[in-house]
Formats: sequence, structure tokens, C-alpha cells
Amino acid sequence: MSQFKVAIYIYPDGDLLDFSGPAEIYCHYHDMEMDMSKPAPFSVTTFAHQSPVTSISKAMVYLPNATFAEMSSRIEEYDILVIPGAHDETIKQLISSKEGKELAELIRRFSNTKPRKETGKRFLQSVCTGGLILAASGVLAGRTVTTHHLSLDLQKTLADEAAGGDSKINVVRQRWSDAGTTEAGVRIVTAGGVSSGIDTSLWVVGQCYGSKAAEMVSEVSEFDMRPAAWGLTPP
Amino acid sequence: MSQFKVAIYIYPDGDLLDFSGPAEIYCHYHDMEMDMSKPAPFSVTTFAHQSPVTSISKAMVYLPNATFAEMSSRIEEYDILVIPGAHDETIKQLISSKEGKELAELIRRFSNTKPRKETGKRFLQSVCTGGLILAASGVLAGRTVTTHHLSLDLQKTLADEAAGGDSKINVVRQRWSDAGTTEAGVRIVTAGGVSSGIDTSLWVVGQCYGSKAAEMVSEVSEFDMRPAAWGLTPP
Repeated sequence: MSQFKVAIYIYPDGDLLDFSGPAEIYCHYHDMEMDMSKPAPFSVTTFAHQSPVTSISKAMVYLPNATFAEMSSRIEEYDILVIPGAHDETIKQLISSKEGKELAELIRRFSNTKPRKETGKRFLQSVCTGGLILAASGVLAGRTVTTHHLSLDLQKTLADEAAGGDSKINVVRQRWSDAGTTEAGVRIVTAGGVSSGIDTSLWVVGQCYGSKAAEMVSEVSEFDMRPAAWGLTPP
Repeated sequence: MSQFKVAIYIYPDGDLLDFSGPAEIYCHYHDMEMDMSKPAPFSVTTFAHQSPVTSISKAMVYLPNATFAEMSSRIEEYDILVIPGAHDETIKQLISSKEGKELAELIRRFSNTKPRKETGKRFLQSVCTGGLILAASGVLAGRTVTTHHLSLDLQKTLADEAAGGDSKINVVRQRWSDAGTTEAGVRIVTAGGVSSGIDTSLWVVGQCYGSKAAEMVSEVSEFDMRPAAWGLTPP
């Protein structure tokens, strides 16, 4: 099978585990692939409007692999687009900025692009309040979605604003939510807060390479994947 | 209370979640602190022998905040030293390198340095196969420790080599293990694989600021801290 290409958008004051969790999971499966003559199951490319990019609390400083412009011009070559979160205020500022509007346009374009024939699947994946960015871009209208549990109301507000009325979004508190497939065949999956992005990524690994692969990554990373409905009922 | 200063060592081909997990947890508590006139509960400083530092699978590229030499000269100002892991082969190469020997010396020196009076506590924290580096530095002799579940035997071998005989190390398969306190009063805590570093960090947050603080970070990051004995008994 062809390699799934993962693009992760990063930005200043972004939450570092939101994107490090998915990067880890996709790399883990890469690293467990012992036959180096075969392509790695996943490749990971980070991209940003800036370089370097400093995460929330200034704890980590990143050099993205590619510029936003480069990735925007070839986003159809990527199978998985990951949008991480941040504090609500950081997200609101991003959404209203020039960079945020370019990102929203990219998200819409990605959602309307049929999967590559080499892989046959395409995923739009938000982590934590990255789901607010998806909401503001308009791609969540009519879908059942989630975000960080303290930002659920804001997700509805932003989706409604993007729709110019009732977006018919169904915001739920879950570990993650499979929000279904766009007309072009892009599967949208939204995660709850922070570490929930790890659960979502394990689910995507399963969608791409089967549940055995996901279980193997879960075992090696010592992260027990939680059911989607976590948080709705007592554990 | 005075701010706890966290130093995280990073190195080429290191496992990115091993250090991003702790960085996230320490920052989360920082970000939840609403009274900005008070010092943040934790500060996080990354340091390395190189710059930039590329993680495992080339997925993420980091600019460390400080050089190894800078941090080595003032390590007594830091309260928590985090040593992340990597593949066993990467760790073995690091241990036998000049950089690895400098790191082992730093770890020994940190373990023998009394806590600062401002904080009263000092922690040496390994994540995943970072516990192999601790073993090779000799500080785990006679202690009950853990590491990634596929590297448990290697941890004992490295500890015995460092001791020049039987190190009397007790290697267990656990989510994390409180390995006790050195003569100088430095608490050593070793984590199992990858995401277990998040559990350990939550435990350290609890040790520094109380269990309510740890529960708050756990809730906000949607990561349920697991008991130390996880993995020993069926979940």
C-alpha cells in the first residue's frame, strides 16, 4: 500500500501535545515497520505561516518542515490534515487573522478534494480546540462533532456564524467523534481535549492499516485507546 | 511558593512524546494559573548538545532553549530534570558517546545536589528508555525502577555494567515507579513507555502542588492518570 502523507499545521502559542500526540502515533507505526525497503506507513510534515514557531508557554520551539504557501499549493498530495488547538483566545485571534482565513480556505479545499487513488482515503482531523477552527471554516455544518469540553458552546457559535444561521451542528462531549464523510469522500474526525488527539490518531491508523496495526501502536506507546463515547458515561 | 524549574534534555532521534508529554503537563498547570502577577508554577527549559534537534522519524524539529554547557553550569538552579527515551539503539549510541558521558555526569551531579531551599524538592524523572540512560549513569543501583516494557532486561544490564557487578536494581514492569530519594534528597521517578511520562509528570505536579492540582491538570488535558502498578495486573 502507498504511504499515507500526514500534514500537521502548527502556529504560535499552539498546544504542543495537540500536535505532538498525532505526530508520535504516526511515527511510531513508521518506526515499527522493520522492512526498510518498503515505504514507511506514514510520513509527517509540519507546516506553518511562521518559522520558528513557539508553542504555548514558550516551552518548545519548532522549525516547521514547510511553509504554509508550499503546502497550500500541494495539499492534494496529503491524505491526513491535522489541525491542533490552543487557548480559546489564541484560536479566536487566529480565526480572524489573515493567516486564519487562509487556513480556513485550505481546510475547505482539502475537504472538497477526493482521496488520492494511491491511498483511497482522506482524513481531516482536529485535536482539542482545533475543532473550533474547523467550525469557523464551515466544514462542520450538519455534523456530530466535539472539541475541548470547555469550548463546546463556542464550537456551536462559530459553526453558526460560518453558516450565517443555524449550522445544524451537533456538538457532543466525547473523547472523539467521527463526523462522517464529505461529498468528496473526506472523513472528518474531531477530538476532545489535548490527549484525545492520540485516541483519534490511533483510530485513523486503524482506518488506514486495520485494527491490529492500531493495537500494536497502542501497545508500544503504552496508550490505551479509549472509546469515542468516553466522558458521556462514567468510566 | 517559588516556581519549580524544569529542565528537559533533548537529543537527535529522541522520542517526541517522551518529552512533549511532560512539557505539556507542566505548561498546562502554568496556563491554568490565572493570577499573572504570581510566578507560573513551573517553567520549562529544553537543552541539548545540538541545535536544531530532529526527533525520531524526522517528524519534528526543535530549537532547544539552551545549550548543554549552559545548563550544566547551572543545573543546581533546576528542580526537575527530565530524561526522555528513544529506540534502544539510539540510547546505546548516546550512552557510549562523549555527549552521553557528559549527560551521565550531569545526572549524577544532579542526583547529589540537595533541593534548593526555595522549593525544597528536587526530582530526577526518566521517561520510557530514558530510564536506560539513568541506569547507565549509575544512579539506579539498589532501586525499584521501570522503563519501556521491551527494554526491561537492558535496564538491568546497563545498571549492572555501571555498578561493575550486581547493581541490586529491581526492574519492574509498571506505568511508573517512585524509585525513592538519594542521600542528597533528590526523588527519582522512572516512567514506563512513552505516554507513561504523562502519568509521571502528573504525579510530580501532585508532589509539588498537591493532588488537587494534579487532578485539575488531568481533567483539562483529558488524560486520566493511571496507578503506578498499571501493567502488572490486568486493567
